[in-house]
Amino acid sequence: MSKLWQKTTNVNELVENFTVGRDREFDEQMAAFDVLGSLAHTRMLQSVGLMDNTDLELVQRELKTIYADIAKGGFKIDEHVEDVHSQVELLLTRRIGDAGKKIHSGRSRNDQVLVDLKLFFRHQLQEVVESTETLFRQLIELSDKYKDVLLPGYTHLQVAMPSSFGLWFGAYAESLVDDLELVLAAYRITNKNPLGSAAGYGSSFPLNRTLTTQLLGFDNLNYNVVYAQMGRGKTERIIAQAISTIAATLAKMAMDQTLYLSQNFSFVSYPDALTTGSSIMPHKKNPDVWEIMRGKCNRLQALPTDVAMMITNLPSGYHRELQLLKELLFPAFADLKHCLQMATFMLKNITVKTNILDDAKYAYLFSVEEVNRLTLSGTPFRDAYKQVGLAIEAGNFNPDKTVNHTHEGSIGNLGNEQISASFNKLINNFDFGKVEQAIKGLVE
Amino acid sequence: MSKLWQKTTNVNELVENFTVGRDREFDEQMAAFDVLGSLAHTRMLQSVGLMDNTDLELVQRELKTIYADIAKGGFKIDEHVEDVHSQVELLLTRRIGDAGKKIHSGRSRNDQVLVDLKLFFRHQLQEVVESTETLFRQLIELSDKYKDVLLPGYTHLQVAMPSSFGLWFGAYAESLVDDLELVLAAYRITNKNPLGSAAGYGSSFPLNRTLTTQLLGFDNLNYNVVYAQMGRGKTERIIAQAISTIAATLAKMAMDQTLYLSQNFSFVSYPDALTTGSSIMPHKKNPDVWEIMRGKCNRLQALPTDVAMMITNLPSGYHRELQLLKELLFPAFADLKHCLQMATFMLKNITVKTNILDDAKYAYLFSVEEVNRLTLSGTPFRDAYKQVGLAIEAGNFNPDKTVNHTHEGSIGNLGNEQISASFNKLINNFDFGKVEQAIKGLVE
Amino acid sequence: MSKLWQKTTNVNELVENFTVGRDREFDEQMAAFDVLGSLAHTRMLQSVGLMDNTDLELVQRELKTIYADIAKGGFKIDEHVEDVHSQVELLLTRRIGDAGKKIHSGRSRNDQVLVDLKLFFRHQLQEVVESTETLFRQLIELSDKYKDVLLPGYTHLQVAMPSSFGLWFGAYAESLVDDLELVLAAYRITNKNPLGSAAGYGSSFPLNRTLTTQLLGFDNLNYNVVYAQMGRGKTERIIAQAISTIAATLAKMAMDQTLYLSQNFSFVSYPDALTTGSSIMPHKKNPDVWEIMRGKCNRLQALPTDVAMMITNLPSGYHRELQLLKELLFPAFADLKHCLQMATFMLKNITVKTNILDDAKYAYLFSVEEVNRLTLSGTPFRDAYKQVGLAIEAGNFNPDKTVNHTHEGSIGNLGNEQISASFNKLINNFDFGKVEQAIKGLVE
Amino acid sequence: MSKLWQKTTNVNELVENFTVGRDREFDEQMAAFDVLGSLAHTRMLQSVGLMDNTDLELVQRELKTIYADIAKGGFKIDEHVEDVHSQVELLLTRRIGDAGKKIHSGRSRNDQVLVDLKLFFRHQLQEVVESTETLFRQLIELSDKYKDVLLPGYTHLQVAMPSSFGLWFGAYAESLVDDLELVLAAYRITNKNPLGSAAGYGSSFPLNRTLTTQLLGFDNLNYNVVYAQMGRGKTERIIAQAISTIAATLAKMAMDQTLYLSQNFSFVSYPDALTTGSSIMPHKKNPDVWEIMRGKCNRLQALPTDVAMMITNLPSGYHRELQLLKELLFPAFADLKHCLQMATFMLKNITVKTNILDDAKYAYLFSVEEVNRLTLSGTPFRDAYKQVGLAIEAGNFNPDKTVNHTHEGSIGNLGNEQISASFNKLINNFDFGKVEQAIKGLVE
Repeated sequence: MSKLWQKTTNVNELVENFTVGRDREFDEQMAAFDVLGSLAHTRMLQSVGLMDNTDLELVQRELKTIYADIAKGGFKIDEHVEDVHSQVELLLTRRIGDAGKKIHSGRSRNDQVLVDLKLFFRHQLQEVVESTETLFRQLIELSDKYKDVLLPGYTHLQVAMPSSFGLWFGAYAESLVDDLELVLAAYRITNKNPLGSAAGYGSSFPLNRTLTTQLLGFDNLNYNVVYAQMGRGKTERIIAQAISTIAATLAKMAMDQTLYLSQNFSFVSYPDALTTGSSIMPHKKNPDVWEIMRGKCNRLQALPTDVAMMITNLPSGYHRELQLLKELLFPAFADLKHCLQMATFMLKNITVKTNILDDAKYAYLFSVEEVNRLTLSGTPFRDAYKQVGLAIEAGNFNPDKTVNHTHEGSIGNLGNEQISASFNKLINNFDFGKVEQAIKGLVE
Repeated sequence: MSKLWQKTTNVNELVENFTVGRDREFDEQMAAFDVLGSLAHTRMLQSVGLMDNTDLELVQRELKTIYADIAKGGFKIDEHVEDVHSQVELLLTRRIGDAGKKIHSGRSRNDQVLVDLKLFFRHQLQEVVESTETLFRQLIELSDKYKDVLLPGYTHLQVAMPSSFGLWFGAYAESLVDDLELVLAAYRITNKNPLGSAAGYGSSFPLNRTLTTQLLGFDNLNYNVVYAQMGRGKTERIIAQAISTIAATLAKMAMDQTLYLSQNFSFVSYPDALTTGSSIMPHKKNPDVWEIMRGKCNRLQALPTDVAMMITNLPSGYHRELQLLKELLFPAFADLKHCLQMATFMLKNITVKTNILDDAKYAYLFSVEEVNRLTLSGTPFRDAYKQVGLAIEAGNFNPDKTVNHTHEGSIGNLGNEQISASFNKLINNFDFGKVEQAIKGLVE
Repeated sequence: MSKLWQKTTNVNELVENFTVGRDREFDEQMAAFDVLGSLAHTRMLQSVGLMDNTDLELVQRELKTIYADIAKGGFKIDEHVEDVHSQVELLLTRRIGDAGKKIHSGRSRNDQVLVDLKLFFRHQLQEVVESTETLFRQLIELSDKYKDVLLPGYTHLQVAMPSSFGLWFGAYAESLVDDLELVLAAYRITNKNPLGSAAGYGSSFPLNRTLTTQLLGFDNLNYNVVYAQMGRGKTERIIAQAISTIAATLAKMAMDQTLYLSQNFSFVSYPDALTTGSSIMPHKKNPDVWEIMRGKCNRLQALPTDVAMMITNLPSGYHRELQLLKELLFPAFADLKHCLQMATFMLKNITVKTNILDDAKYAYLFSVEEVNRLTLSGTPFRDAYKQVGLAIEAGNFNPDKTVNHTHEGSIGNLGNEQISASFNKLINNFDFGKVEQAIKGLVE
Repeated sequence: MSKLWQKTTNVNELVENFTVGRDREFDEQMAAFDVLGSLAHTRMLQSVGLMDNTDLELVQRELKTIYADIAKGGFKIDEHVEDVHSQVELLLTRRIGDAGKKIHSGRSRNDQVLVDLKLFFRHQLQEVVESTETLFRQLIELSDKYKDVLLPGYTHLQVAMPSSFGLWFGAYAESLVDDLELVLAAYRITNKNPLGSAAGYGSSFPLNRTLTTQLLGFDNLNYNVVYAQMGRGKTERIIAQAISTIAATLAKMAMDQTLYLSQNFSFVSYPDALTTGSSIMPHKKNPDVWEIMRGKCNRLQALPTDVAMMITNLPSGYHRELQLLKELLFPAFADLKHCLQMATFMLKNITVKTNILDDAKYAYLFSVEEVNRLTLSGTPFRDAYKQVGLAIEAGNFNPDKTVNHTHEGSIGNLGNEQISASFNKLINNFDFGKVEQAIKGLVE
């Protein structure tokens, strides 16, 4: 492999295989973002007099060509090339000669990787938010649709109180609202510009970091250059935490689904094509999709610890193993998006059972309702409680099975509009439009 | 113990010891918040006709007395009483008779605990933010003060580039800015009202949850009642993630400190009283405070996993073990605040070494500087690089040790004002004033 | 506080509170083991000429008195004393003067703590094994007793094949066998002598570490003194892993129990006193004990990560935060033993439902049985499979509900004797008798 | 894809992609072990009359051919085939017709996967042990070779006492001894036969599980069939714990190495080809191999939590996500072996600095030595301590820099023979020969 820092001694091949590992595979996923970084960086270089206009024009033209090629899927890191940065430089110098080398002025590989990762993560987070939104809308739709279908509500896994499919679907929708708060925090931390921090200690070049910040659509700078470097690993950990919280919501929903699909509950069902079975066990509708989702999402819940364990107790400054974080984060984004999409797909095909509460074992669900009815007619709570208890003991308990809940967020008043409003407000806070505008300004 | 749900059978004592555990100890810390919840709840009950004015007046008067007693430290859960809710009810009924029992109308223990926890966590997060702010100001002050004192910057733990104490202190300050983004997300998720969700399935009472939301100073409701219950455990996990990110910043700083205090670095020192030593090893200045801080903070970094492991794969609905999360979260807040305060205290007493770079082993720090100087005078980067490399190889490298970094966030332009501005903006977003106003409205 | 290393400067009180923390509380639990260490150490000192006979006699006599006092519960660390080592020295010097100080020759606090911890952990592991054994016997007894009571077996939480209470109880018994393999490994790693490693770099005294190894009943030495110190944290992590594996078995059993107690399964039940309920929901039998056990055990499953996060990336040599590991390990032992005992207690009181399979929803459990019956009479497997499938599809499937499994470990041949034999063999490998003999030799 | 359980409905392609995931990729690694399982299973089937001699001969002949092909690298799962089991059956039926289908009698896919995984893990553990042994021998060799080269010993990262390279290398060797205890426990838990447990509830066929246990070289059976299934996930977690403990040893060594390679220590060095550098920073010898190793091994330290998070709170019985554990375990084995080999490779090339203690900053290392010398000549410890302390304070401290440690495990008496003896004893306990003998008996 050709390396930027290489002088005379060849690095032992064993060392190279061990240290480079799967890095090139992940670097290919970052290629478009590497080019974006160079487009902004070179415009800044020219603006502060570190690149002349002719070179800038050449470089910009070729970088845009490479960007377009990447978009078409036509980018590969050659086998003898170490990383995406070297590959892009190679393509440039082949086409425009020495001007291609100048894109490295005022940068080190450290801040180049930092900015590539920030741009890549920002993009991935946007895709996560979009998939989350689709699932959210699906859940709200189901909640509205089945708001009158009752379900037993459990505490301690014991039959406890009347619930509804409206509440059940809606609860997971509202869970995604809170999850998005965390994703927004991760996005804001990600959406700050580390470019210009060089190897983590800044540079004697008169860089204009505010300009690259604006060109790349970042909200702000990682000002302090030591902190910009310190953000590596930390950004990944915080993103992992945001990922883990959506994953936790999905995993819990998946657990409910596998339970509700069990013959011991039978609250929901799916078309045969979406479950797996057996010709001699025709009753079996194995919820493989939900089980795999539960597994993938629980694995994602462990992701923040994977990251934390790798960076804990490292003193400040760059360390080579930070590179390995790509192996953790890159597949995690793909898995999370896949799970969000499959959850939406499955829910589109769900059938809910409409007469669940006819089953005798759910009779006592209404005992608290009865106490409340009495209280509302003036009996003190403790006395109503005793009265119903005695009726049940004596076998005289004949509950009225209508449910009349009216307060905010209850069976009869789900609050789905308010929940949707909260969700929409959060989505707007991401301001993806600003980023798209900036990217457009760079590549067109 | 006297229990609300107890009828005739005595629960086996073994069972009780096992299930109650250390819960009463933690409940005492929540007492003030339990009373706040009841103050708001009863005002709401009266407003919807579930409590008459006479009862309300009695109840409010006594609850305010209890609140004042708690503030004075005069609250204890009696030995035979199960939890804080029963203790408050006991005090009320002793003083105002049956009216005291009515505070439970339209509530279950589940949503009462939920709201107590939310109020407690909200308060703790405010204290964390305040301690974080003090540390932030201290770090900025040190960064400004020592902005001209140089330090070797390391990559791979190898001497690499000139850095400064200004950068080093400032980096940890800026780290706290990003940490606060996560704390703000956790705060927003916490600052929503679960009261009225009853046992997790709502109530047939015509509750006005919007009113309690406003009275308790919450930003919004946890609308969906199933979600309100599902928030238990989830809120704790997200708070734990917020705690863990501040802890990670402190742990990293502590690691740097123990290294820089080692005789092999000797970059910083402390008064004898703040380190521990030995009369026969007078050179030893053991950095026990920083080591204990590193340990406590790394332990806090594992906290989100502790929480996640306890709640993963639990189906929706209340489960008794959620109670155990208090054992994890309550001491974590205390530990984090203690660490933030000790970090501030230590930094107030730090001495930095001013002539570090005079040591010969730091000579090559300036090689990149030299390359840049040449580049700035017009030599292409790659050629300047080669030229300096050859000079070093030939033994002709005599670097100019002045550092002239001017871009944003560099040694000569730390950006501490901008970093402080970001911090201040975040602090304002918490809007603690609104909460304080609401509490005042309840207890006065 | 009086400290061994204190010379002239008083350590700031804030520092002391922060660094000592809860350490004295845990030290009291180690007191007996500290005295055992000193009993062995002083006998060794005399044998190599570092203590004369008169001093040895005095010291041994008083140490044995202190040991007896501890056994009677009469030991406290005085408020102004830093740790258990200082307290023991204080008691000795009060009673026998300067001879008491000599117990520190040839030791540092580091290896004194190391040996105390090893002895404490060894003792705790023995108690864990004993509680595990009681639970194991209980499970085997239930497995034998209910070997003929059938239960639906689930895959994917779908009704799948006939199982039995014999299998269910027996599975958890056999799980404990494998758990014990890990506990044995942890015990062997624990049961090695670190005494004599001083501050982690050995000593110029002509110590006889083989003698203290034998006196304290250790299996072997931690030879290398640097490794003896490195074992701190590592030993705790490995013990935590052993604890976590038993905890995982208990948590899984607890999850099954909460499910089987749900009205949707109703496979098992308990006396009222062992569950909690409500007078208006008489059907509710909340399985609080199993839920708290699940929570405690899942928390224990996170313990190894708590430890690992605290020690990861610490270079070799002692670091002060190792002290904090006591806060993790000491309560974990108590919790695990408590859970093991409560599991045994609950199981002693379990009632199993005997006619579960009469329920129509479990009919198809026998489809695979039928296929096998055909295969045994000569039909190729694939054809038998198709034949039964078609019968079911056509509605002609009338299964024979007798189960005739005969192979090792199946419903009709549980293998409980072999499982018990494996368990007994493992218990014998611990060789607790040797340890008890050694302790006796020291204190009598 | 062709699936064993498929009847008429085609499973939606989205579902299939999601649920199968990367499984086929991992299945290829298990192919040889799947064939071994079938070789043993069919011999057992014939022995109990479930397969006739002709079929057995055909099946055995072809399975051995496939086994040989796998060994030569000539095995691939066809694109339309779901898993390794189906692929092997496909090959068989193509070559020997219907006889090929009979290998599934008396088995389900569940116990077939279980036994494949056990055989695969057993083999991987053997390779881990072998790589560990090579590293162990290397460390002992270096410890012996450099036993007289002194090094500062640190406590609290403060210069504390004389140490030596003999101790340093030897400590990591002894660490591997304890690690092997855990690996042995994992191996024993792995080395038990789950075959015959069918779908986790056993079978009505008169299987002879003792025979397959013996044929496959297992130590024992997983008797209880419910437990055999429960072992999935649990086995992986315990193996992950064993992996994590070796990883922790390597990570700690890597941390020491990066520190000792820093210019602030400069205790060790490597040939240029094994570090990376920069032509303008000729002093930089970036320890990339050790950093990557530290990162990989810390990631492995998080592995047990990854597994635990995926299986926690799953009720007993098979769940589909257990399949995903392959994605965690399979690469972990490869990574660990790679790290062990690279550690050995690097250590073969290490150079240690021989005159470290000549540096003035290490002078006070000898203060404790001096106290001990006085004590050995009869001065009471506390008085000697004070005398040296005063000498140092007065500036009269001139230590004798010879080190004369003689006790077990100290600088002058490393105990490497005893440590090696412990290691060898553990290696013998694995009894790999028995396994190899059994495999030979199956395939020849």
